[in-house]
Amino acid sequence: MEYSFSRRISALQPSAIREILKVTADPSVISLAAGNPSPETFPAEDMAAIAADIFARRAAPALQYGISEGYAPLRESTAARLRERFGAGGPRDDLIIVSGAQQGIEMAAKCFADAGDAVLCEEPSFIGALNALRSYGVTLKGVPCGPDGMDMDALEAALDSTPRVKLIYTIPTFQNPSGVTMPAENRRRLLALAEKHNVMVLEDDPYCELRYDGPPVPPIKSMDTEGRVIYCGSYSKVIAPGIRLGFVCAPAAVISKLTVAKQVADVHSNLFFQMLVHEYITTRDLDGHIERCRGLYRAKRDRMADALRACKALKFRVPDGGLFLWCELPDGLDGLEFCRRMARKGVAAVPGASFLADESRSLSAIRLNFSLPSLEQIGAGCARLIETLDESVTA
Amino acid sequence: MEYSFSRRISALQPSAIREILKVTADPSVISLAAGNPSPETFPAEDMAAIAADIFARRAAPALQYGISEGYAPLRESTAARLRERFGAGGPRDDLIIVSGAQQGIEMAAKCFADAGDAVLCEEPSFIGALNALRSYGVTLKGVPCGPDGMDMDALEAALDSTPRVKLIYTIPTFQNPSGVTMPAENRRRLLALAEKHNVMVLEDDPYCELRYDGPPVPPIKSMDTEGRVIYCGSYSKVIAPGIRLGFVCAPAAVISKLTVAKQVADVHSNLFFQMLVHEYITTRDLDGHIERCRGLYRAKRDRMADALRACKALKFRVPDGGLFLWCELPDGLDGLEFCRRMARKGVAAVPGASFLADESRSLSAIRLNFSLPSLEQIGAGCARLIETLDESVTA
Repeated sequence: MEYSFSRRISALQPSAIREILKVTADPSVISLAAGNPSPETFPAEDMAAIAADIFARRAAPALQYGISEGYAPLRESTAARLRERFGAGGPRDDLIIVSGAQQGIEMAAKCFADAGDAVLCEEPSFIGALNALRSYGVTLKGVPCGPDGMDMDALEAALDSTPRVKLIYTIPTFQNPSGVTMPAENRRRLLALAEKHNVMVLEDDPYCELRYDGPPVPPIKSMDTEGRVIYCGSYSKVIAPGIRLGFVCAPAAVISKLTVAKQVADVHSNLFFQMLVHEYITTRDLDGHIERCRGLYRAKRDRMADALRACKALKFRVPDGGLFLWCELPDGLDGLEFCRRMARKGVAAVPGASFLADESRSLSAIRLNFSLPSLEQIGAGCARLIETLDESVTA
Repeated sequence: MEYSFSRRISALQPSAIREILKVTADPSVISLAAGNPSPETFPAEDMAAIAADIFARRAAPALQYGISEGYAPLRESTAARLRERFGAGGPRDDLIIVSGAQQGIEMAAKCFADAGDAVLCEEPSFIGALNALRSYGVTLKGVPCGPDGMDMDALEAALDSTPRVKLIYTIPTFQNPSGVTMPAENRRRLLALAEKHNVMVLEDDPYCELRYDGPPVPPIKSMDTEGRVIYCGSYSKVIAPGIRLGFVCAPAAVISKLTVAKQVADVHSNLFFQMLVHEYITTRDLDGHIERCRGLYRAKRDRMADALRACKALKFRVPDGGLFLWCELPDGLDGLEFCRRMARKGVAAVPGASFLADESRSLSAIRLNFSLPSLEQIGAGCARLIETLDESVTA
């Protein structure tokens, strides 16, 4: 039979990325396409010990229903770290535990955007967030992203010219996919522009702990005196993604609405792992663990940059952190077609156009992930990438 | 500052139930208000052993990102049990793992209902589902619920008279809150009416395994030859609710849309517990475990029914299964006011009006839960209930 789906979900089309990602099911394929952290970084031994202890001493509360705001001790330990490390979250803010930053973004879209409202975002930007926003019928308007992240003049022009802007969605630190970081002065200007135009800022910050070079840049949330910033953080990249835990720090009035959305969405996030993560971050050496993750990823990033430097036709910036390297191909080479050719050589990458507000445009760029593949796979994958490029240019 | 929330979320008001539930934070209060299974039923020892094994042998895949459809072996074992035990799910159906049946209902609302569409539901019905539907701007229309569940003549009249009906939402087995079960012939009629009016059926069936008396009634999904039924099931009541795992069985074209909604909602459900539950249901004695749960809950239900029979002014039906007993007060006694008086005596229950499509109506009924309190608490709680009633009637 024919199904009559809602307009909002009918507007969401399967992405071209799925076709590319399918090849990664073949274990012989080298995937530079994922957004996964490396399993070497999962603190599985500590987690196993804590899990055994929870089962032994607190099984009943860990397996029972919890409250939608999340496990109170984890809310407190998360808020404390955010405040002490990043200066983010003030007395008027509150925090809710969600099932990954993805859920924070989806719920913020649900709570703020009516169909037809506009959301400004970096272009390129994270597909998962763009699709969450699209799933509420919003109009996405991309703001070009340069070496300093979102272009502030272009943002100002977009705010002036776009009706019904409700949110500015930004990944200011080690942006996905471009890898760039917005400097502190641009963050202040973004916030001032948001205030002037009375729009909310949705700050997506899953990679902030994964800095390999340079001094930290404070989150936009740390500059938020008015209560205009909704900050989404994640335990996926510093602990493990499969447990699906993240958090949102925002003004209490906003958290109150997000809690209503959370209650109808799934009641609460997995309580057992909320307890486990709280135990881990308060009794184990999270900072030492993150330092080890940084060392591992720094080496992988350097390996990838070294391998790509061998080819003069490729343009890229070495990111200061995060999981991704954005690679520009020679002009005229379509990223999607290039990824298809790479896939035939057993290497997967994501075409740059997948990250556009308008996915149908052509873009001579691809996104490469360096966190999941081994050093050897990075070397071999980049060699095949360059091989594909040589063949594409001579063809 | 003032926040401009979306219309859909602004329409969701905090329920009167919250005020009542607050008193349950006091441990001296006897709560007959919850919808929680008893922690005595959680198979924590088996779960602990399986968790240790997953950490020891498969930590990396259990903690890594998974696919939005869910862990493939769990999808298969869940679908197999559904087919073999309940005759539900045919060759054109597919199954997705979600974070509790609640998420299945929310995503079905997102995928099917545009703002202004109507959804027909039993009245009274489950608040969590009603709020999930409300959060997409649908108009709820309650269909009276009698001893056989949703009244079929009233459903037919509602379908004839209500514009833009997209879904019939029903809990046909041990309905929450009324406890009643829809007979098989009514299920067939409901499906025929849905076909005639070309609307989808959203079947919410979290309690089906918890039958204490009488022969099983097949789910509506088992009668679905056209692909019109979206079936939501749950592991909350037979394993544990805090792990947040449930499933949706529906036509493949519907599961495909729900998968898009799941991907933007939270990428996937906690993968570690998906693996754990699969291991549990395929290597442990799930049937024996459920039999023990039934024994425990049957005794609690009987204890509650016996205690309430002492008061002739109360009217109730003994439910054949599930977690709830619906108790009608003498005419003219408002359920909300009655629950406030009970709360002052240290007993919490939920006013019947909380379960109405129009919550502002007065209703001389309350919902009592018998799964969570101990036998002693059930006895003491019901005694205080009757005491409250005596005082209310003489006042």
